[in-house]
Amino acid sequence: MSKVGIIMGSTSDMPVMQKAIDILQDFEIEIEVDIVSAHRTPEKLFDYAKNAHTRGISVIIAGAGGAAHLPGMVASLSPLPIIGVPVKSSNSIDGWDSVLSILQMPGGVPVATVALDGALNAGILAAQIIGSSNTSVLNKVIAYKEGLKQKVVEGAKKVRK
Amino acid sequence: MSKVGIIMGSTSDMPVMQKAIDILQDFEIEIEVDIVSAHRTPEKLFDYAKNAHTRGISVIIAGAGGAAHLPGMVASLSPLPIIGVPVKSSNSIDGWDSVLSILQMPGGVPVATVALDGALNAGILAAQIIGSSNTSVLNKVIAYKEGLKQKVVEGAKKVRK
Amino acid sequence: MSKVGIIMGSTSDMPVMQKAIDILQDFEIEIEVDIVSAHRTPEKLFDYAKNAHTRGISVIIAGAGGAAHLPGMVASLSPLPIIGVPVKSSNSIDGWDSVLSILQMPGGVPVATVALDGALNAGILAAQIIGSSNTSVLNKVIAYKEGLKQKVVEGAKKVRK
Amino acid sequence: MSKVGIIMGSTSDMPVMQKAIDILQDFEIEIEVDIVSAHRTPEKLFDYAKNAHTRGISVIIAGAGGAAHLPGMVASLSPLPIIGVPVKSSNSIDGWDSVLSILQMPGGVPVATVALDGALNAGILAAQIIGSSNTSVLNKVIAYKEGLKQKVVEGAKKVRK
Amino acid sequence: MSKVGIIMGSTSDMPVMQKAIDILQDFEIEIEVDIVSAHRTPEKLFDYAKNAHTRGISVIIAGAGGAAHLPGMVASLSPLPIIGVPVKSSNSIDGWDSVLSILQMPGGVPVATVALDGALNAGILAAQIIGSSNTSVLNKVIAYKEGLKQKVVEGAKKVRK
Amino acid sequence: MSKVGIIMGSTSDMPVMQKAIDILQDFEIEIEVDIVSAHRTPEKLFDYAKNAHTRGISVIIAGAGGAAHLPGMVASLSPLPIIGVPVKSSNSIDGWDSVLSILQMPGGVPVATVALDGALNAGILAAQIIGSSNTSVLNKVIAYKEGLKQKVVEGAKKVRK
Amino acid sequence: MSKVGIIMGSTSDMPVMQKAIDILQDFEIEIEVDIVSAHRTPEKLFDYAKNAHTRGISVIIAGAGGAAHLPGMVASLSPLPIIGVPVKSSNSIDGWDSVLSILQMPGGVPVATVALDGALNAGILAAQIIGSSNTSVLNKVIAYKEGLKQKVVEGAKKVRK
Amino acid sequence: MSKVGIIMGSTSDMPVMQKAIDILQDFEIEIEVDIVSAHRTPEKLFDYAKNAHTRGISVIIAGAGGAAHLPGMVASLSPLPIIGVPVKSSNSIDGWDSVLSILQMPGGVPVATVALDGALNAGILAAQIIGSSNTSVLNKVIAYKEGLKQKVVEGAKKVRK
Repeated sequence: MSKVGIIMGSTSDMPVMQKAIDILQDFEIEIEVDIVSAHRTPEKLFDYAKNAHTRGISVIIAGAGGAAHLPGMVASLSPLPIIGVPVKSSNSIDGWDSVLSILQMPGGVPVATVALDGALNAGILAAQIIGSSNTSVLNKVIAYKEGLKQKVVEGAKKVRK
Repeated sequence: MSKVGIIMGSTSDMPVMQKAIDILQDFEIEIEVDIVSAHRTPEKLFDYAKNAHTRGISVIIAGAGGAAHLPGMVASLSPLPIIGVPVKSSNSIDGWDSVLSILQMPGGVPVATVALDGALNAGILAAQIIGSSNTSVLNKVIAYKEGLKQKVVEGAKKVRK
Repeated sequence: MSKVGIIMGSTSDMPVMQKAIDILQDFEIEIEVDIVSAHRTPEKLFDYAKNAHTRGISVIIAGAGGAAHLPGMVASLSPLPIIGVPVKSSNSIDGWDSVLSILQMPGGVPVATVALDGALNAGILAAQIIGSSNTSVLNKVIAYKEGLKQKVVEGAKKVRK
Repeated sequence: MSKVGIIMGSTSDMPVMQKAIDILQDFEIEIEVDIVSAHRTPEKLFDYAKNAHTRGISVIIAGAGGAAHLPGMVASLSPLPIIGVPVKSSNSIDGWDSVLSILQMPGGVPVATVALDGALNAGILAAQIIGSSNTSVLNKVIAYKEGLKQKVVEGAKKVRK
Repeated sequence: MSKVGIIMGSTSDMPVMQKAIDILQDFEIEIEVDIVSAHRTPEKLFDYAKNAHTRGISVIIAGAGGAAHLPGMVASLSPLPIIGVPVKSSNSIDGWDSVLSILQMPGGVPVATVALDGALNAGILAAQIIGSSNTSVLNKVIAYKEGLKQKVVEGAKKVRK
Repeated sequence: MSKVGIIMGSTSDMPVMQKAIDILQDFEIEIEVDIVSAHRTPEKLFDYAKNAHTRGISVIIAGAGGAAHLPGMVASLSPLPIIGVPVKSSNSIDGWDSVLSILQMPGGVPVATVALDGALNAGILAAQIIGSSNTSVLNKVIAYKEGLKQKVVEGAKKVRK
Repeated sequence: MSKVGIIMGSTSDMPVMQKAIDILQDFEIEIEVDIVSAHRTPEKLFDYAKNAHTRGISVIIAGAGGAAHLPGMVASLSPLPIIGVPVKSSNSIDGWDSVLSILQMPGGVPVATVALDGALNAGILAAQIIGSSNTSVLNKVIAYKEGLKQKVVEGAKKVRK
Repeated sequence: MSKVGIIMGSTSDMPVMQKAIDILQDFEIEIEVDIVSAHRTPEKLFDYAKNAHTRGISVIIAGAGGAAHLPGMVASLSPLPIIGVPVKSSNSIDGWDSVLSILQMPGGVPVATVALDGALNAGILAAQIIGSSNTSVLNKVIAYKEGLKQKVVEGAKKVRK
């Protein structure tokens, strides 16, 4: 089955990125987690991005903060769909740099950007991408959404009392 | 084969969204184009989003501007991957409203957001999503990227003269 | 008499939205509070918004944060005046996303937007809307404003000492 | 019947504000248009705002740009619901000043803010406020929304061809 | 001698505005402190602003936050130089609303705006305005600036060790 | 009588700054205009700022754009009140750099900042500063404000027709 | 002597980058111009950046717009000083994305960023870097600055007339 | 050998600027640290900037916050490469003022700007500038970058376990 590659620029991004790991494990989708820094390990970035699609990975989630070049550079080197997670790291200007340097990719090289610190949504989006050609995963996404609804229904009950 | 649904909030979004149509036709991926307004045809939005995955659509591209609710509302109603295109419409504050109201989705309901007016990238991303489980489409993406490279190489030749 | 519907996207919005509840109770205006999530309970949103005006509600206050689609979607489905409260939720970029995705509605579908976290003002505005055709409520608004003035007068006394 | 007061800080705001006038005339709601400048005719502002509710006006629409104080100052002096239209005037910084100086009113003194240059929506909102206690106007709002839907339906027909 | 009027919208602005009071007392310039709220005591604002120049006040310092209309409204009613202090109040969006709604006054009605929370500089500027026609005060400003220099010189000594 | 020094960083700022010249000539206040660039003629800046108050200048208006250091550097060297005009020059990012680099002066060194491109208001503010100790100039300011009012009154007449 | 490498992401950046070329030619510093796209020719980027310092280049100027990764990626691969020019390209959000994705580099990998579209300053900065160890170039920089001063002096003469 | 001058506007900038000091000491590059305030010690700024290149300094690092004029004014007075560090000081609006007033220098007078609070990168950039004509320092930079890579490699090992 499809595998999701999850990479991030630094171990300090792990608290944010953990939510992508957790939700994909809940969905029983195979993952592979690694630290790949665009700015400190550019050769590793090249190897990773050029070969990911040849070794069973079908979606890559990349998280980074500040002048966040990891998602875009992976997108330049891989034909796979790349999901970018802008991380509000300590050196970020309120997250604007992280968001804009991931989102505003030039024509020809898309990054599927999610909300600031939105690793949970990155995981769900990866599942939806796999689910678009896999009914079993699609049904898990449908069940997950039903669960979201139930939590709101219960919250609403309390409020109306 | 997989089909891509392309919707937008208004016919005035068509000049921007045309690039998604064109690139997907270049990739010979089947598309279905419609106008669906979250704010003016909410019932149509509901019907469209709830049923798209049952009639052969595997990815939805939704473009909208200003307080752009179309991509997020489709994402709330469909289990498919939704690609959002923030359109810098005439009533937008420099595009910031379009970007933020598509990108900043709450946990549980992702929208794969591309750059402002980035419909070309939305089309390529849709192809990459299909390509992640379809080798023929994956190879078209690889060829497309090779073409991008050639254009730069030719530009570089002229500059170096 | 007129009733005000107060809805919010999540129970986590309650600390902000409580001020709308309190001020309307002070004004002795009937309220109905519920949790309605645009993204997690879209069907409930539809039912709520399409029918509110048929069951005695004359104004709706809707609070939400981030890519805040609740007020705008209610506005698309209801002929009533809708008051939107942008909530500075934990996933918001300093509140800008909440503000812009509520304020910047397209022509034809207004949302009466108040300040970030401005639920108190949403409650007062709802009272003013009812008061515009109800002298008793109008007089309560006038009395409330007189109270605001008195507090400033007392503060000024202390400062001038 | 209820009357809507429409004021603006300068005749240069008229091209934007005209849309509020037109839509209210379409709805056959009585209007009264005037120029009232918070900064150049403060006494007139005082007279206008303190007395509007005593001479048959039930909603006030106020448009202004830059450091836009007109809507907020009218709100401080009148018990009526005040709708603020941020105008992107020539001296504005991309409209941000207009938006923030109208929207961010302190607790106790709401202004119902619409989108930048959103005078059409201000007119519709005024109609909805009157409609919340007037079935005839409410029905006009419902019919107007039906008209919006029809235009989208026709646009969609052309696109699908 | 000249007197400086110091007003603010709320007692909660006092911690910020105290620095203007202190520095003017250091300069032995007579001050008069009051709470005047544009939105809650508009009549008092009118009386204050229209008459200040007739009772010995030659400069007015006005501090306010959020949609901060106090400095601009005083400027509309008084011929005196008005110094505006944007306060980063609790209801402000990072101070941007306070800054823009004070700074961006229309042609004809200036407010001398200082930095966010810059009440110290407002006090010094008031002294400079008085000093521009009063040698004794001018000399105090010159001495104050000399003092600033000495502190830097001492800091530099420590750093160079 | 008092003289106003008007300086700007470049002759390209003249179209904006001309309004300060014109209004002060209308007020019959003596002016002295010069080009002083903080970045290209720093020695001239030093001479100008250190000596202005010794040769009859009582207020300085300084206009500059981009990283606009002229007003703040003059303020660091002169005891006079300095009025800063942020100019939206061609190399400016929508004027934000001009505004922030003039407004956000550190404690101890104020610049009286006016709106972006607000040279007219800089001229009026200079007159108000002189007028705060000169009844003849104060009366001219009062008359000017009366003129502003008359223009609005005439505009209002046309609109009400 | 030292050589300056000038690269840009696209031929469309040439009108902006030409100013760096021109000024370095004025300074008689050897340059080498090329098109290198981080996103479309990543392999070329790698080769270029890893080897530049081994073939006589001592400073690299890199211009790019939108999510501008070229300067930062070159900085990650080269030990040389890298000067980044944020270009306000057609797909940029008012230049903010270009600026932030070049400026906000993580600790360890600096990019010497100049103003938006500031290619002239990039060229001068490259000359200053070479001049810091080359008296002949240093003297050209000093002469250039003297020329800037002369232009202001001449402008000032005209204005004072 | 070359010496790096490190200056800052206030001792309160030291916690940020210390990282530049530390890294240059690690690189065994001679430094000279001083407090120079553009606004409080303008004469010292003049002396420092005009003479630095005559007494062995080859690069200057200048840190400042708010309306940060120190780096730009040093650049106007010195032919050396000037590195600007925008400091997020307590009086800054989220750092935007610091960044823009350092970055957006006019044509002719560059400042090599690094990230907000990016003093570490300022130190490395100074080393790279010296290294561009000094093989021994260049090799230290290469070794430093190799060290960055090793830390990522070790972090990656832990994550993959």
